[in-house]
Amino acid sequence: VGHPVVTADWLNARGRSTLLIYGHYDVQPPDPLDQWKSPPFEPAIRDGYLYGRGAADDKGQMFVHVKAIESYLRTSGSLPVNVKCLFEGEEEIGSHNLYRFLAGRREAWKADAAVLSDMWMLGPDRPAIAESLRGALSAELEVRGQDRDLHSGNFGGAIHNPLQTLCEIIAKLHDSRGAIAIPGFFDRVRDVTPEERAYMARVGPGDALMLEDAGALLGWGEPGFSLYERTTIRPALSVNGIVGGYQGPGAKAVIPARAAAKLNFRLVPDQDPDEIDALFRRFVEQITPRTVRVLVRTLFRARPFVLHREHYAVRAARAALRKGIGVPPEFMRIGGTIPVAHLLQEELGIPTVLMGFALPGDRLHAPNERFLLSNFFRGIETSIHLLAELARL
Amino acid sequence: VGHPVVTADWLNARGRSTLLIYGHYDVQPPDPLDQWKSPPFEPAIRDGYLYGRGAADDKGQMFVHVKAIESYLRTSGSLPVNVKCLFEGEEEIGSHNLYRFLAGRREAWKADAAVLSDMWMLGPDRPAIAESLRGALSAELEVRGQDRDLHSGNFGGAIHNPLQTLCEIIAKLHDSRGAIAIPGFFDRVRDVTPEERAYMARVGPGDALMLEDAGALLGWGEPGFSLYERTTIRPALSVNGIVGGYQGPGAKAVIPARAAAKLNFRLVPDQDPDEIDALFRRFVEQITPRTVRVLVRTLFRARPFVLHREHYAVRAARAALRKGIGVPPEFMRIGGTIPVAHLLQEELGIPTVLMGFALPGDRLHAPNERFLLSNFFRGIETSIHLLAELARL
Repeated sequence: VGHPVVTADWLNARGRSTLLIYGHYDVQPPDPLDQWKSPPFEPAIRDGYLYGRGAADDKGQMFVHVKAIESYLRTSGSLPVNVKCLFEGEEEIGSHNLYRFLAGRREAWKADAAVLSDMWMLGPDRPAIAESLRGALSAELEVRGQDRDLHSGNFGGAIHNPLQTLCEIIAKLHDSRGAIAIPGFFDRVRDVTPEERAYMARVGPGDALMLEDAGALLGWGEPGFSLYERTTIRPALSVNGIVGGYQGPGAKAVIPARAAAKLNFRLVPDQDPDEIDALFRRFVEQITPRTVRVLVRTLFRARPFVLHREHYAVRAARAALRKGIGVPPEFMRIGGTIPVAHLLQEELGIPTVLMGFALPGDRLHAPNERFLLSNFFRGIETSIHLLAELARL
Repeated sequence: VGHPVVTADWLNARGRSTLLIYGHYDVQPPDPLDQWKSPPFEPAIRDGYLYGRGAADDKGQMFVHVKAIESYLRTSGSLPVNVKCLFEGEEEIGSHNLYRFLAGRREAWKADAAVLSDMWMLGPDRPAIAESLRGALSAELEVRGQDRDLHSGNFGGAIHNPLQTLCEIIAKLHDSRGAIAIPGFFDRVRDVTPEERAYMARVGPGDALMLEDAGALLGWGEPGFSLYERTTIRPALSVNGIVGGYQGPGAKAVIPARAAAKLNFRLVPDQDPDEIDALFRRFVEQITPRTVRVLVRTLFRARPFVLHREHYAVRAARAALRKGIGVPPEFMRIGGTIPVAHLLQEELGIPTVLMGFALPGDRLHAPNERFLLSNFFRGIETSIHLLAELARL
């Protein structure tokens, strides 16, 4: 069951280093379909962009590296370094089969460096290498009260409504300033140096651009940090959904027997998802009133990723981007989570470089996903240079 | 559009009083369907109970009076008083068409007394007449944030999540003791005398029974009042439902652009639904952070009802219950709302008696609603006696 892991290798560059190229060929669901200007699974070119689901995330960017390998093999007939390709089909649903696939094959998948192009540049002509990714912890919080749904006329005022209780618990997870209120939550958050923050302020998006990208008028969150910082070097907790009580049109006088919320933490070094899970559970227990029971189900855990900035593969990637795009790359911090980056670097021990060719506004996960074709071609050049640079080091 | 108001009358008792019999043939939705032991719309008899949606609320109880009339007409061929039947099909959704129907027909629907059996007894062999009903105010509270759904990895920590904000607003509607926190909300709440409270303590359900009926282990709410008092002579606010964000299985990293809750107030004399609506809206405005916009939509308003305890129709009903059930009735306060009771008594000027034959535990509005068949038959006898008693007075 599941989508196969697709592999390929070329290991004839004796004495040279080995590059693992990761990509994923699965995509997010295309819904809502009616918002696509052309069918999501019929690639269409308009104004220099290729439109379609997966154009950027990640089929198009994965294909960049395939075309680079093809270029080498069709011209010189060989590659300058050894290459292992690892293409999975379940990235968007948790990569479970990839973990299983690699579990017994760690030796076979050893490499000196890995490259992933499942991300975007800072802007047109602003190539970037990912400096960090946040980790994640997803959980479901269920509040159970009385053993059946009640009529809110007959019982309103006498029974602690589980849906209200859920709201009260959620409201206590942040303090009034917008910081997460779980005791101990920040204990392991690594301070970022003033120099690094100054670098972020210089190259990263400002608050105005972040708000424009979000379609929001005002920012919010932990005091003392820019919006870019709040979404990258600081942890976050989001409520992703609540289910409870009557969901239809009009009114229904019900006190539901239970209510549940889906919560999503984003974690930064050196937070440990398991430790945060325990702190979260303990705090929820503390703030849960005796009138209800609470169940916490952990759905997903992923560790943060931090680039090995001084590794020679990073130097090679920087040189390749400078040559391929024509501009030296910057270091970019990312708020999202790519568990496979942690898997490759920390579990398989392969220094990993994330560099992408998509652009902000390419609508990854949304309707009318696209990929700028000129970036596709510049990406191929960059990948060719990466292989050459790795051979040189 | 809508379900028709069904009417009938028998007006041949010259010089005798006129009784208006009200009932409703519409029912609550049967969901959740999987919790029904037999299909909700296929009546099933088990252990002396009739099971099905509407068995008690209100088809079964409405039918009690139809059978009483039938008994008279089939035996003596006439009724001892004049009777007007008013059966509507939209009680559960606000009775809008009934109001419209009666608007131009006030004269035609004059009567000396009205009876409704849309309620329950205090217990087996404990008949009751409703002393009071709470009023209601239903509203939808919608929180709108940024103009599109966002990825909680990329934006978590920087944008005030509308779903979280909704929880924060809801959490502020009650204080930490369980009392409603809206300024001015209690200003018009009428004090109930110590004698009345002593009567309530004597005849009404104790906390233990209330909790058993609710399937709850602990009570909750406004300090200084019993659970029976909290649900009858004190107002309440319940969250009936929340819709926001991802509702499916597993996790989805979304910060939804909007979230909404359905809220339901229960009001007591002399609270005015319009005034409470204004106080609620003002408070919500005060506690809404600048990061989001809030929309309040009022769905429904109803005034509280108080029995005209000394009216002769109440004496007739007491005598009828004593004879029909075999036990003198008590006065019961009800937490729910029956807007038509206020409509009949205050707007049409007809002293109105609510007396029911359902039992606590008959699961009105819930799965496995039922009606004890022996109470159905004793109800018919009671209704027959009511007609006779009204003829005597």
